[in-house]
Amino acid sequence: MSLDPVLDHIDANIDPATERLLDLLRIPSISTDPAYKGDCDRAADWLVADLQSIGFEATKHPTTGHPMVVAQSGGDGPHILFYGHYDVQPVDPLHLWDRDPFDPAVEQTDKGPVIRGRGASDDKGQLMTFIEACRAWKAVHGTLPGNITIFFEGEEESGSPSLIPFLKDNADLLRADIALICDTGMYGDATPAIITQLRGLLGEEVTITGPSKDLHSGMYGGIAMNPARVLAKVIAALHDETGRITVPGFYDGVPELSNELAAAWDDLNFDAEAFLGEVGLKYPAGEQGRRPLEMIWSRPTCEVNGMTAGYTGDGFKTVLPAQASAKISFRLVGQQDPEAIRVAFRKQVSDMIPADCGVTFHAHGASAAGQMTTTHPAFDQARRALSDEWPNAAAYVGCGGSIPIAAYFKTYLDMDAMLIGFGKDDDQIHSPNEKYDLSSFHKGTRSWARILHAMTR
Amino acid sequence: MSLDPVLDHIDANIDPATERLLDLLRIPSISTDPAYKGDCDRAADWLVADLQSIGFEATKHPTTGHPMVVAQSGGDGPHILFYGHYDVQPVDPLHLWDRDPFDPAVEQTDKGPVIRGRGASDDKGQLMTFIEACRAWKAVHGTLPGNITIFFEGEEESGSPSLIPFLKDNADLLRADIALICDTGMYGDATPAIITQLRGLLGEEVTITGPSKDLHSGMYGGIAMNPARVLAKVIAALHDETGRITVPGFYDGVPELSNELAAAWDDLNFDAEAFLGEVGLKYPAGEQGRRPLEMIWSRPTCEVNGMTAGYTGDGFKTVLPAQASAKISFRLVGQQDPEAIRVAFRKQVSDMIPADCGVTFHAHGASAAGQMTTTHPAFDQARRALSDEWPNAAAYVGCGGSIPIAAYFKTYLDMDAMLIGFGKDDDQIHSPNEKYDLSSFHKGTRSWARILHAMTR
Repeated sequence: MSLDPVLDHIDANIDPATERLLDLLRIPSISTDPAYKGDCDRAADWLVADLQSIGFEATKHPTTGHPMVVAQSGGDGPHILFYGHYDVQPVDPLHLWDRDPFDPAVEQTDKGPVIRGRGASDDKGQLMTFIEACRAWKAVHGTLPGNITIFFEGEEESGSPSLIPFLKDNADLLRADIALICDTGMYGDATPAIITQLRGLLGEEVTITGPSKDLHSGMYGGIAMNPARVLAKVIAALHDETGRITVPGFYDGVPELSNELAAAWDDLNFDAEAFLGEVGLKYPAGEQGRRPLEMIWSRPTCEVNGMTAGYTGDGFKTVLPAQASAKISFRLVGQQDPEAIRVAFRKQVSDMIPADCGVTFHAHGASAAGQMTTTHPAFDQARRALSDEWPNAAAYVGCGGSIPIAAYFKTYLDMDAMLIGFGKDDDQIHSPNEKYDLSSFHKGTRSWARILHAMTR
Repeated sequence: MSLDPVLDHIDANIDPATERLLDLLRIPSISTDPAYKGDCDRAADWLVADLQSIGFEATKHPTTGHPMVVAQSGGDGPHILFYGHYDVQPVDPLHLWDRDPFDPAVEQTDKGPVIRGRGASDDKGQLMTFIEACRAWKAVHGTLPGNITIFFEGEEESGSPSLIPFLKDNADLLRADIALICDTGMYGDATPAIITQLRGLLGEEVTITGPSKDLHSGMYGGIAMNPARVLAKVIAALHDETGRITVPGFYDGVPELSNELAAAWDDLNFDAEAFLGEVGLKYPAGEQGRRPLEMIWSRPTCEVNGMTAGYTGDGFKTVLPAQASAKISFRLVGQQDPEAIRVAFRKQVSDMIPADCGVTFHAHGASAAGQMTTTHPAFDQARRALSDEWPNAAAYVGCGGSIPIAAYFKTYLDMDAMLIGFGKDDDQIHSPNEKYDLSSFHKGTRSWARILHAMTR
C-alpha cells in the first residue's frame, strides 16, 4: 500500500483531527485525584468509541483503579503494540494558567499555532497522533498496515498501580512483535528522537509528627519540638555541598558514561544555557563536574516535589505545627535498586528524628531505569522513516523522565519497546499552560504513517 | 457599694451570660483572612450594642483595617481602661475540629463543663468576663464603680496594623489611670496570675524563587535548582545543634534571669513534663541548659509557623517547584531590637541564596518584649482581690506570648498595664477545638467584680 496518499489525507484533514483532540482534552482525567475518577472513565469511553469508529475492536477493561483501553485491528503482517496514557497531571497552581486547563483551544503564538490545555502534549496529543495516522490509512486504503493492537492506560501520572497486574493477566492479549510508546519528545525542533535509555523513579511521602495538635507558638515556642524544623534538617541533609545525594549506597549500580555514548552526546552540542533559559534559569545545578546532558539523562537525582507544614494561608498565624510533610522523589539510573534505596532513605530519615517526634512514610511507586536494545530491525526502520519526515536525521538519545512501561513490556511480555514522541522542551508538561505545537501534532501523525509503512511493507 | 450582692447576681445569672458569649462566638471574626472582613465588622457592632445595653456610651471607630470599639461609663473615681480583642485565629486544619468552630456550645467533659468554639478563650470569652462583671454591678447598684473606658480591637491576631495610629489619634479618649488587659491565662487551675513580663514578636514571610514555573522533575531534575531544597537549608541553618539561634547579633539585649526571679520561678515548681504531656510531648526542646520556664518565658525563640512548596495535594506529582515559602516568627525578650533582628535575619537568608534563585521577604509585624512596673497600687489591690476569689494566692509570672498593647499603652499613653486573664494551658487557643472552661468564665467574671471593687472603694 502506498504512503503518499495517506500523507496527503493527513494534510487535508488536520482541522477535524485537531477538533477531535480538543474534544478529548476537555475531559479532566486527572488520575491522582479521586475527585476525577468519573472523568477518567469518560476519557476511556471516548477512546473506545473513537477507535471503534475506525474499525478497531475496542474494549474498556475495568481495574481496581482507572480502566484500561485495548483495541485490535486484526489483519496480517507484523504485530505492533502501541501504548499511550489518557490520564493527565493535576492543574494547580490554577491561577498561573492563562486559560481554563480543560477548555482547550488552538492559540497563535510567535512560534506558530499551539494546542493549549492540560494533556495537550502529555499524553493525549501524542496518543492521538497514532490514532490519526491509523484513521488516515483506513480512509485511504480501507485497511490498516500490519496487525495493530492499541493499549491505553489511565494511571500513568499516578504510579500505574493496576498496570503490572493487568499486563500479567492479559499477556496473550497484549504481546506483539514490538511495542511503540509515544510519551516522549523531540531532541530539538528539527531533530526527532528515539529514546534508548530512561531514568527510573522512586516516590516517597514523609510525614514528621510532633505535638498532638497545632500549638500557640507563644505558649509553647522554645520548649516544644517543631516538626517543620525537623523536616527542614532532613531535606537539607539529602545533598552534600557538591550536589551528591547522601543516602548510603545510593550510587551503587550507577554506571559511568561509556566513551561511545559520551562522544555521541557531545556531538549533539547540547546548549544547557538555552535549555535552562527557557525556564528562567542559567546555571546547571547538579553534581559538580558532570556534563549537563549527564545531569538530565544519566545521573540519578533527589528532588523535593512538595512540602507543607502549619499555616500556609493568607496573613500570619503564630502556630507551632503538629506535623510537617514532604513529597520526595528520586530519578534512578543503571542498576540502582529502587527498593534498596527506599529502605536506605527511610533509615537515614528515621535516624534524624529527635525525641518527641515521629515519622511515617508512604510509598508512591518505584521503577528501575530502562535500557533499550536497538538491535530489533524496527529501530532502523523507524529511524529512517523519521529522518524522511523531519529536517534532521533521527537521533538515539537518553531521557531524564521515567516511563516504566518500557521495562515492564520487556519483563512481563518479553517485548522490545521503541520510544518515539514529538513533544518539545517548552511544552510545559506538568506545568501551567501546557501546550502541544500544532506542527508536532501534524508532523507526528505523518511520522507514524511513515513508520507504519516502513515496518510493514 | 457592697460586693457580695454583685457576686450573688453573677452566680444567679451565669446561664444568660453564657448565652451572650455563645452568641458572640457564632461570628467568625477571623482578622487575618480578608474573606471575613464583614464578620469582623459584625462582631464590633455586636459589642457596641451590648455595651450600650448596660449604659455605656459605645462607638465603633472605623480604621483602614478592622474597626475599634470604644465605650465609656463616665462617673467618678479612678479611671480604668479595659482592653480586649474581638478577632480570632483561623480555624484550619478544620478536619481536626470535633464541631463547627463557629457553632459553639457548652460541652460536658471529665474536667467539667467547657465552652467550645473558636475564640472561646482567645479572646471573646475573656473580654466578656469583664463586660459581665460590669453588667452585674450595673444591675445591682444602678451604676458602675469608678470611671470605666472599654477598648476592643479587631486586629490582634493579625499584627494590629491600625493600633498605634489609633492610639496616637485618640490618646485623650483612651488615657486612664491604669489599663487592664484580659488576654492571658492562670498560672495553674487554682492559681491566678498577673503577668509582669511578655515576649515580643517578629514575623517574617520568606519566598524563595527559582524556575519561572513549576517544572517536570524528569526533564529538569538534576540540572535545575530546586527552591524547596534551598528553603530547607535556610531553615535548617537557623538553629545550631544546641538549640541556639544563629542569626548574628540575635542575643544582643537578652538578659540573664535575675537571682530573685530565678528563685521565685523555682518556687512555682513548674512541671514541664505535665505541661508538655498535655500536648503529647515529654522533653523540653529548647536551648540546652535552660530552665523549662526560661524557655517559655524569658528566652527568645525562632519558629517555623508555616511552610509550603510544590504539590501538596492528594497523590504524587513529580514537579520541581518554581518557588517555596515559609512563615517564620521570633519571640523576643529583654532589649532585643525587632527591626535590627529583621535586618540580620534577611541578610543571613539572602547570603544563602544560590545562583538562579531569588528571595523576597514580607514583614508581618514587630513588637519588643514588655516588662511591667508593679509599683502602681492597682497591682497589689488586684493581687489581693484575685487571692480572695481563688484557692491559691495570685502569682506574678512571665508570659511566652506577645501582647504588644501593654508596651504601646506605656509608650503612647504613658499608662501602666496590668495583664490578668483566666485561660488555661489546655484551652487549645490557636488550635482546633479551642475551649474556655465554664468555671474560667464564671470565676473570671467574679474576679473582675472583686478587682473593680478593690480598685474603687
